[in-house]
Parts: sequence; structure tokens; C-alpha cells
Amino acid sequence: MLRRLYNACLVRPGDLSPSHEELEVVGTFNPGAVAVGDEVALLVRVAERPRERREGFAGLPRWEPGAGLTIDWVPNDTVRFLDPRVVEVKATGSARLTFVSHLVALRSKDGRSIDSWNGVRFQPQEEYETYGIEDPRITRIGDRFYFTYVAVSPHGAATALASTMDFRTFDRHGIIFPCENKDVLLFPEPVDGEYVALHRPNPSVHFAPPEMWIAHSSDLLHWGRHAVVHAAQGQWETGRIGGGAPPFRTEHGWLEVYHGNEKSPDAPGVGVYAAGAFLLDLEHPQRILRRSPDPIMMPEAEFEREGFVHNVVFPTGAVQRDDTLLLYYGAADAYTAVVEFSQAELLAAISQ
Amino acid sequence: MLRRLYNACLVRPGDLSPSHEELEVVGTFNPGAVAVGDEVALLVRVAERPRERREGFAGLPRWEPGAGLTIDWVPNDTVRFLDPRVVEVKATGSARLTFVSHLVALRSKDGRSIDSWNGVRFQPQEEYETYGIEDPRITRIGDRFYFTYVAVSPHGAATALASTMDFRTFDRHGIIFPCENKDVLLFPEPVDGEYVALHRPNPSVHFAPPEMWIAHSSDLLHWGRHAVVHAAQGQWETGRIGGGAPPFRTEHGWLEVYHGNEKSPDAPGVGVYAAGAFLLDLEHPQRILRRSPDPIMMPEAEFEREGFVHNVVFPTGAVQRDDTLLLYYGAADAYTAVVEFSQAELLAAISQ
Repeated sequence: MLRRLYNACLVRPGDLSPSHEELEVVGTFNPGAVAVGDEVALLVRVAERPRERREGFAGLPRWEPGAGLTIDWVPNDTVRFLDPRVVEVKATGSARLTFVSHLVALRSKDGRSIDSWNGVRFQPQEEYETYGIEDPRITRIGDRFYFTYVAVSPHGAATALASTMDFRTFDRHGIIFPCENKDVLLFPEPVDGEYVALHRPNPSVHFAPPEMWIAHSSDLLHWGRHAVVHAAQGQWETGRIGGGAPPFRTEHGWLEVYHGNEKSPDAPGVGVYAAGAFLLDLEHPQRILRRSPDPIMMPEAEFEREGFVHNVVFPTGAVQRDDTLLLYYGAADAYTAVVEFSQAELLAAISQ
Repeated sequence: MLRRLYNACLVRPGDLSPSHEELEVVGTFNPGAVAVGDEVALLVRVAERPRERREGFAGLPRWEPGAGLTIDWVPNDTVRFLDPRVVEVKATGSARLTFVSHLVALRSKDGRSIDSWNGVRFQPQEEYETYGIEDPRITRIGDRFYFTYVAVSPHGAATALASTMDFRTFDRHGIIFPCENKDVLLFPEPVDGEYVALHRPNPSVHFAPPEMWIAHSSDLLHWGRHAVVHAAQGQWETGRIGGGAPPFRTEHGWLEVYHGNEKSPDAPGVGVYAAGAFLLDLEHPQRILRRSPDPIMMPEAEFEREGFVHNVVFPTGAVQRDDTLLLYYGAADAYTAVVEFSQAELLAAISQ
């Protein structure tokens, strides 16, 4: 585990007003983060659930294109509660989320505190965003900020792409990885003539431990040359793994900080979520040069240990500052936090 | 249901010799099929299992790049038998197949019988084919025959692309749709400047009935502009759906014959597999113009009702002959068969 030079909880649900009078904010987490000049721009995922409680019913929110927010009130005995986030509708076997997410753009001059709570929101609008917009990852490519996000809808959890110049207006570029695929990270520059992304397909049948894949593109929209980059090796990552902060260039290779989750005997995605790191070859990014055998970061702070889902650190953005690294992450599926590491100590931890 | 003008079982496991002395052929099914001049070229999936039986053990075959065939003998009490095809290794929760598949190239002058059983084999060779090569779909594009196939490995069930000029030598083009994705069909020509494919992602969490998607590409290798084409509507397709024969052009639209499976209370993929059809707009193939409300074909013949998996018709290739259509399909996950339909009667059945 790495020494934390600085650590703070930046955003809590009470800091933001709801996006709709019928909703309340229950999570402000998994922030995309990118350097904009000397400042840091964040896109924070805001999870909201119906404010109203109806005895014997579950309120399931969704955004209908054109119609806005709709809450489906479903009798409790017609659904199965799979975990705090997901119910299964018994009649169809299909899943629904108990909350709906969007993004809010926040800014930090010092990287360690939020300047203002009045940010522009990036809300569900397309049919493929009906159940929400989740887990943005921002990469600056040229003078434009691209961000991938999980678009959840009746079609499943796909990954879509959008971009912005100013974090005030946004352009959508559609679904780039069909369901089920999450944790899609764009590299900041082409490698050998093609853009590169890490992605994390999630098949219905598992033949192996969880894996992260790589893909290539000439236009950021069409992706191919798929290959496996990293399969879970440590016990701490036997349940789930996925890209964390978009990779950034160091003299030793592309540095990637990712998340892993220990397999629980009960269900996937229930155990501790920790962070690890690896270095990819600068010219052949499908090759891992070295990796951290153990997590570099595990839930320690109270806001990491207790929240909507306990014991989660989930890195989603990195900003280099001289010889340190500001790592932005979701804590306990409830909070946005930042931790500062020494880059030299991080590289030293990546030993294998 | 459509009138069958002609119907025959073309290939049975006993017709082909095993590819390896330690294996026996248990299935010859799900054939890719394409017109080559006046003839029909087939790529038949050959499923093989270990010839030896060891009391108390399951023999799980795999192809290791460089090393060839390996059979892992696993004590029965360390695995769970999920269905006749799949076991789960208890220690890891990962799946293994009880057989391994490759393809054999066969030829039919009249489209209704096989000329010779000595075909060139397309066998696992790459690491992403370790557990087999399944369910080819052939599309002629220009003067080259491209075929997609399911590449099964520890990384899951992905779809890869290969091509040939002569069905004697083959070029591999790698994974084009990462796991889990099957039933990938290429259109025979670009539409509005891009190649088009139908595909069938299979997420770990289902938010909706099963769906078929469409994607676009400029080079057949990088795919994007993903969108949903068809979601299951009839009761007969509530379990699983997926593309069948590669779409072909008619004056009314792209004609697609696909498969559906009725949801079983026991498990997905257990109920009857039937065939339906729809017409896609010639210029905007993401739009369904009309569809068959009911199956056009259900298991009837004995070789469709009884086999490795009972009650399966699984269309995988179509050849137009004047005003009729030769539809090649897998029967009962064991046999290759052909059925002949009137194209006029098929179009009439697609009414909605």
C-alpha cells in the first residue's frame, strides 16, 4: 500500500441539490478528472432516488426521451432485491436500477477542494441513457476533452462517448462499446497511428478470472483489434477488475491505476474494492511491463469504509502535479475523494 | 410456418472422421453456407469430445497454441454440470466446454447433398481459439469469402473474422467483437459507404428481453455506430435471439432469417429453437420494415427433434436459387440440414 501524502473527501451527497423535485441525491462519486491548465475539471456522477417512500412499493426511476423523469411504482412482491442497487422484475427476469445517475461538472483550482457547487449537468437524454449516465472517464486529446461513460438502458450497460471544449456544452458521439462493457479508458494520444482504449467486457458466462481488454481505433468511434491486456492475478482482484484512471505517459511506460474486487462467496461485486497499478509498454500498450503485486490503496478512511456500498475505493481520474499524482476516486459508492501519491513511490510499488 | 418444398439432413457425425485420434465426432452442425458459382460451399462446425471415458472424471479438451490437443481430466466432484455442453469448475467458478469444435469445408454441387467428405479443416490455432471455433457465417464481399465465427477461449466467447478465396487456405483477421458476442453476420455490400453487421451481445445482467444489434465499419475490422435492431417480441423468442443466415438483398429490403428460443423456467437456452424472419430497410438497415409474427420454421423432422440438444433448428446460411431459397441450418446441435422455401411465400409470411 502506498503512503498517502494527502487525502480528502471532496463531494458528499448533501453538497448538491437534486436535479428534480421528485428525487434526492444519494451518491456523488466515481468522478472523471482532468487537468485544465493549472486547474482540475471534474465530472461527478450524481446518483438520485425517488424522494417519496410508498409502503410496499419500490420506486424505480427512469428518464424517457422527450417525457423527462418517470418513476415506476412496483409492488415489492413483484421484484427481487438483488443488492441495494438492482432489482429483478420477477415477471420478466429483467433488471432495474433503484436510482438514476447523471453527471455534474465541478471545478477545483487547487485540486484539493471544490470551488462552487453550481455546475452544468450532463443528464440522460438519449434512449440508450434511460436508466442513467454513470462513471465518466475524461481524456484530453488535442484541444478537446473526451469522456466515456456507462449508458444504462433497457438495452443493458453499454459505454458511450461524448466530448466538450469547456464543460458547459457537450457533444454526444453514441455507443462505442455495446453492452455489457464498462471502465472504458482512452489513451491521451495515438500509439503507432491508432487511438487506444482499455475496456472491460462482462460476459454472461465466465471462462476465466475477470479481464481487461485493449482495442484500437482510427476515429474514436469504430473499435477493433481487441486483445486481452490483464487478467486478475492477485487474490484481491479475483471478483472484478476494470480500468480506473485513464492511462498517462511516464518515461517508463503508460501508467494505469485500476480497480479490483475480491471475489465474495456470496455474490460478485460485494467484497472490498481496492486499487492496483501497472505499466504498459509505450509503443506496444497491449504489453504489461510491470504490475503491483498487491493493492496500492485499500479502503481506510471512514468515508471509504462506510457509505452506500461499504469498503470501496474506485479510482477514476489522475492529474500529474510535478512529482506527485492527484488521484480522484469514488469512495463507498457515495463520495468523491482525492488522494495524493508520490509518483516515484508509485513506480517503485509496480515491481513485477 | 412455411411450407417446406424440400428438406434433408446433409451431414451426420458418422460421416466425418475425427480430427485427432483421441477425439470422437459428436456434432456436425451450424454450417456456414454460400453460393460459389452454381455450387454451394459449406463450413460445417464439427464438435468433438474425448473418445476415452474415465470413471469419475470429466475429460475437458482444449487446443494449446503450439502444443496441440490437451485433455484435462477433472474429478467429477470438482465440477458442476450446467448442461450437456458446459461444466463449471467449482474452485474458480469458471466454465469449461465438454467438447471442442473446428470447421470443415464441404462442397455441394446441387445444394442438396455433399459431394465428398474429405474437406480442408479450419482448426484452433490462436490462443483466443483454445476451446474451439464455432458457428461460422459466410458472406461474399467482392471476390473474397469472409466468415465470422465464435472463438471460445479462457477469455470467453468472442467473435473473430477470417477469409478465404478458395476454402483451402484461410486468413485470420482477429477478434472483431469481444466477449460475449455471437451470431455476427456481415452484409454482402456496404450500405451508405460503410460495411454493416448484425451482432448479438450477451450481457451478464439483463435489463430487457434478448436483442440483436447492428454495427458499422469502414474496414470490417473496427466496428462502431452500435444500435439495437430487434428486441424479442413473440413468446417463441423470449429466451434467446440471434442472427441466422447473413442478410441478403431483395427488392423489398434486406431479408434476415434468425433464430429465437422460448424462455424456459429452468434455464436459458433449453427450450425449443425456432426460426423467424424480418426485412430491413435497404438504405437504413437499422430499421425493421416487416417481421414474421410467428416462427417460419420449428423443429419437425426427427433429426431436428432428437440430437445432442433436442428441438433445435438454427439457420446459419442462405442461398438464393431462382424463386426459391435454400436455407442451411443446424438441427438438434448435431446435424447439418437444408430446407427449401419459396421466396414469395417467405416474403408473404413477413407481414407485420
